[in-house]
Amino acid sequence: MLRTHTAGSLRAEHIGQTVTLTGWVDRRRDHGGVAFIDLRDASGVAQVVIRDESVAHPLRSEFVLQVTGEVSQRPDGNENTNLATGQVELVAADVVVLNESAPLPFQVSTALDGTETIGEEARLKHRYLDLRRPAPAKALRLRAKANAAARRVLDAQEFVEIETPTLTRSTPEGARDFLVPARLAPGSWYALPQSPQLFKQLLMVAGMERYYQIARCYRDEDFRADRQPEFTQLDVEMSFVEQDDVIALGEQLLVALWDLIGVTIPTPIPRMTFKDAMERYGSDKPDLRFGLELTELTGYFSETPFRVFQAPYVGAVVFPGGASTPRRGFDAWQEWAKQRGAKGLAYVTFTEDGELGGPVAKNLSDSEREGLAAATGAKPGDAVFFAAGKPTDARALLGAARLEIGKKAGLIDEDQWAFVWVVDAPLFKPTGEDDDVAVGEGAWTAVHHAFTSPTPEWIDTFEENPGEALAYAYDIVCNGNEIGGGSIRIHRRDVQERVFAIMGIGEEEAQEKFGFLLDAFAFGAPPHGGIAFGWDRILTLLTGSDSIRDVIAFPKSGGGFDPLTQAPAPITAQQRKEAGVDSTPKPPVE
Amino acid sequence: MLRTHTAGSLRAEHIGQTVTLTGWVDRRRDHGGVAFIDLRDASGVAQVVIRDESVAHPLRSEFVLQVTGEVSQRPDGNENTNLATGQVELVAADVVVLNESAPLPFQVSTALDGTETIGEEARLKHRYLDLRRPAPAKALRLRAKANAAARRVLDAQEFVEIETPTLTRSTPEGARDFLVPARLAPGSWYALPQSPQLFKQLLMVAGMERYYQIARCYRDEDFRADRQPEFTQLDVEMSFVEQDDVIALGEQLLVALWDLIGVTIPTPIPRMTFKDAMERYGSDKPDLRFGLELTELTGYFSETPFRVFQAPYVGAVVFPGGASTPRRGFDAWQEWAKQRGAKGLAYVTFTEDGELGGPVAKNLSDSEREGLAAATGAKPGDAVFFAAGKPTDARALLGAARLEIGKKAGLIDEDQWAFVWVVDAPLFKPTGEDDDVAVGEGAWTAVHHAFTSPTPEWIDTFEENPGEALAYAYDIVCNGNEIGGGSIRIHRRDVQERVFAIMGIGEEEAQEKFGFLLDAFAFGAPPHGGIAFGWDRILTLLTGSDSIRDVIAFPKSGGGFDPLTQAPAPITAQQRKEAGVDSTPKPPVE
Repeated sequence: MLRTHTAGSLRAEHIGQTVTLTGWVDRRRDHGGVAFIDLRDASGVAQVVIRDESVAHPLRSEFVLQVTGEVSQRPDGNENTNLATGQVELVAADVVVLNESAPLPFQVSTALDGTETIGEEARLKHRYLDLRRPAPAKALRLRAKANAAARRVLDAQEFVEIETPTLTRSTPEGARDFLVPARLAPGSWYALPQSPQLFKQLLMVAGMERYYQIARCYRDEDFRADRQPEFTQLDVEMSFVEQDDVIALGEQLLVALWDLIGVTIPTPIPRMTFKDAMERYGSDKPDLRFGLELTELTGYFSETPFRVFQAPYVGAVVFPGGASTPRRGFDAWQEWAKQRGAKGLAYVTFTEDGELGGPVAKNLSDSEREGLAAATGAKPGDAVFFAAGKPTDARALLGAARLEIGKKAGLIDEDQWAFVWVVDAPLFKPTGEDDDVAVGEGAWTAVHHAFTSPTPEWIDTFEENPGEALAYAYDIVCNGNEIGGGSIRIHRRDVQERVFAIMGIGEEEAQEKFGFLLDAFAFGAPPHGGIAFGWDRILTLLTGSDSIRDVIAFPKSGGGFDPLTQAPAPITAQQRKEAGVDSTPKPPVE
Repeated sequence: MLRTHTAGSLRAEHIGQTVTLTGWVDRRRDHGGVAFIDLRDASGVAQVVIRDESVAHPLRSEFVLQVTGEVSQRPDGNENTNLATGQVELVAADVVVLNESAPLPFQVSTALDGTETIGEEARLKHRYLDLRRPAPAKALRLRAKANAAARRVLDAQEFVEIETPTLTRSTPEGARDFLVPARLAPGSWYALPQSPQLFKQLLMVAGMERYYQIARCYRDEDFRADRQPEFTQLDVEMSFVEQDDVIALGEQLLVALWDLIGVTIPTPIPRMTFKDAMERYGSDKPDLRFGLELTELTGYFSETPFRVFQAPYVGAVVFPGGASTPRRGFDAWQEWAKQRGAKGLAYVTFTEDGELGGPVAKNLSDSEREGLAAATGAKPGDAVFFAAGKPTDARALLGAARLEIGKKAGLIDEDQWAFVWVVDAPLFKPTGEDDDVAVGEGAWTAVHHAFTSPTPEWIDTFEENPGEALAYAYDIVCNGNEIGGGSIRIHRRDVQERVFAIMGIGEEEAQEKFGFLLDAFAFGAPPHGGIAFGWDRILTLLTGSDSIRDVIAFPKSGGGFDPLTQAPAPITAQQRKEAGVDSTPKPPVE
């Protein structure tokens, strides 16, 4: 080692010892011909005193030094009680410049921690400098501790960590696959896996019984703020289990993770049905750090003269204290609703005297006006937002409004952690409702994925009413973020084929795309289920970061571009030729 | 859980208890209307007794059962002392068939362990069945334990586990990159990393100081028996270290790994220079389980009349007891040498009387014949093989012959573990000597990779004699297998540019390909070094497997083809269009 001690480890007990430190010049101060260098390494900061001006003179920020000298007590009054090493200083006898540093694009000194405002593009382009700053470095270190915590839980229960392939076959899971040309089979392509789903199920068929992997996954999606083309999930699968078993394991993992930041999650974590979540919070990932439930008013307005409310669903959410919102504030709400694809956001206000105002009021009948406060739970001074129309859309709008209200009205305790399992989700949704890539050509597509089992109640009858059938699935939600989800899987070939049929995946297509899974199911597949946790999302929460980019060592920015390496990049004509991109594939090997 | 106990956990203490097991029908026997089922789960096998013939009748191999009943003492004389559960049996009261199994393509019963001969293609195609067999399942379980053992060593020393990107930029490291079209930047491509090399160096520049990752790597190489297009390495990097520090850590890791199979590796592991390894064993990865060193005879034959030995190098290796090899045996050796690209393999024999024979003998001078036994160390009854020519080629031939002799003469103790560090390798080799993809266009290319530092002695002068300059690098060899390697890296931009220059990588090309690394080096890069272990290779050794395919959950077979999923496969026209494969890239973003 080029050092005898780490900078952050120096204490009074080292006084009088000759030690060698290595590290970066975090900061320098000069006082009467003496230079004081804050020397930083991964362990912390130590003060180095250089009395020789000619030695100190050339040293600049982020130079890499090797300093040998004697550890001394700091002079009276010069101790720094904020620093673990603040009682001592290293009086340099020998200073070796291990490397120099050009002037930095932005400052990284520990002394500036939290006070910097550095553009993200610059941070990502110079991520090797950004990571010298305390907060980003700490995030990566916590991530490693999270890996270790999860493995401790899983290893103790005889889970086997298994790596699954990443050069594999395209498996439709709701997003586009990244593709890789196969040079040795010109014209054929591998796909990068959207998840290890099929392989972990095959491992259950293989009798491994308990599998996990901190797995890299790939989805070629259009850019969204909180997505990355490659991301990581803690992927778990178990045989001979029911929903409660996987949920219990999931809770053990979450408890171990939040314990890393000193938070004790009470267990069991509450559960809520998907139906409840949608009806009460307008979301399948309700933020339960605050109440403010939606009120359904479909019955209340069943005789309404107001055309807008003559709809299959009418609901409302209260905006506590919202009555004092100025007119332009309500206009902004209209704009907000329109950006979400709604026509607008109907509202009423209740003055402090309890008087009803707002544009909707005059359209209502006398009795509707009169009972409205009681029906919605609004108090004097509140506003109430309405949505009417298709239940899914109207609830989604109210659910989103609820979150906005929660923020604006300060209803969210930022120090709280509210976990909930959302269970009993629908098995299918109508095709084309969102921008997922449809698998198959049926009117229905899977809400979770095509391998999710119907609940025991629906397993024999889901074809009769695909829109009502329930999935044997569970999502874990934290503060309004879906941080994990899983299901009991289909393990019978006949059930899998029936689910494919509903999704419009014919026998031939199923055999072509998933033949190996269907084949495997023919040879004694055990009942099994599992869960996957969004590792980047969880770390974002644990570190209190703004973005998943803060917890990824080298993240991509918008459009999948890496400001550091400038990937992706053009390839040469020779690379293209060798990759076989332009070859016609030979017929598949049978 | 669908069970109360695991099959392998039943003991005498459970007698009288009602338990529920789940598992696979490993084997069934019928005796006088009673069926005995060996029920197998991941924990082991338990005997289930089914007295109801109608229940037992339909049960076939690999059916998945849930059996409830009372644990009973086996009748006197029926105990099976080979089985942990051999004292007891489960008398079935209720048998639920959780899933059926079609007739198997090959048998997987535990009872057949080690006696099967199943073709590899069938095993890989039905890997989910293959993994039900004891040996393959055990290999994957040991792999998980190896991961855990390595992490214990590293976590205890404050290494940070960090994930590096796999959608990145093409970085020339001696092999072809796999490429991934970037849909959002049509005509541009990501590359899958050949290793995390550049990123781990950037993490050192970032001040993380100690990094590790069990990392997936990708090399698009032509098929060789023991290669996979995707493979795994334990990747480690450290700052402020010298060669001895990385070697010491490497030894701790190896000790922890071999401890898993009950082997204690003596440390320190011996070191050998590359020069010694080549001169004495004709290999940079010498198998030290046996001696049989090469003898250099260049001086001995300096005056030889034999034209073939009038060469820049003449060497020999003894074949103990080889004199009795029949003529067709020596012919086979000639054939063997020719397949390795040599012209043949000159040899002499020493009869039990010490008389010299073989075709070479008559070409030698009297004095050469006379002193040959002493010069080569051959004893009566031995043969001696010679090689003459370019030292590299001749030594490689003798080294390969040495290994063949070791096997044929039974010199290798298969239970022995012989580790050695090979150090002081050359920094450069002439371009075009092997089938590596040359980086740059110079006469020299890197032996390890372009980021390896010259040794301190050569750092200022390597340009003067690139062929002699030594790399600050170390490979770890076990029983003739290179299982890991690393180096102290270049951390100074000027040195890196000088190395690139020798490799014919001009300033512009360097900036285009590695600009981000060179840029990073400008901002206070610390001295650093690291190592990477070939995880698949190490597990192959630890499990005593024949092939790395045995320690990979879902390996590819020849040509990168996956017999299970049939990947790679053709893509649809729409996929091709969306992937942007045929677009012209926009000029790079600056």
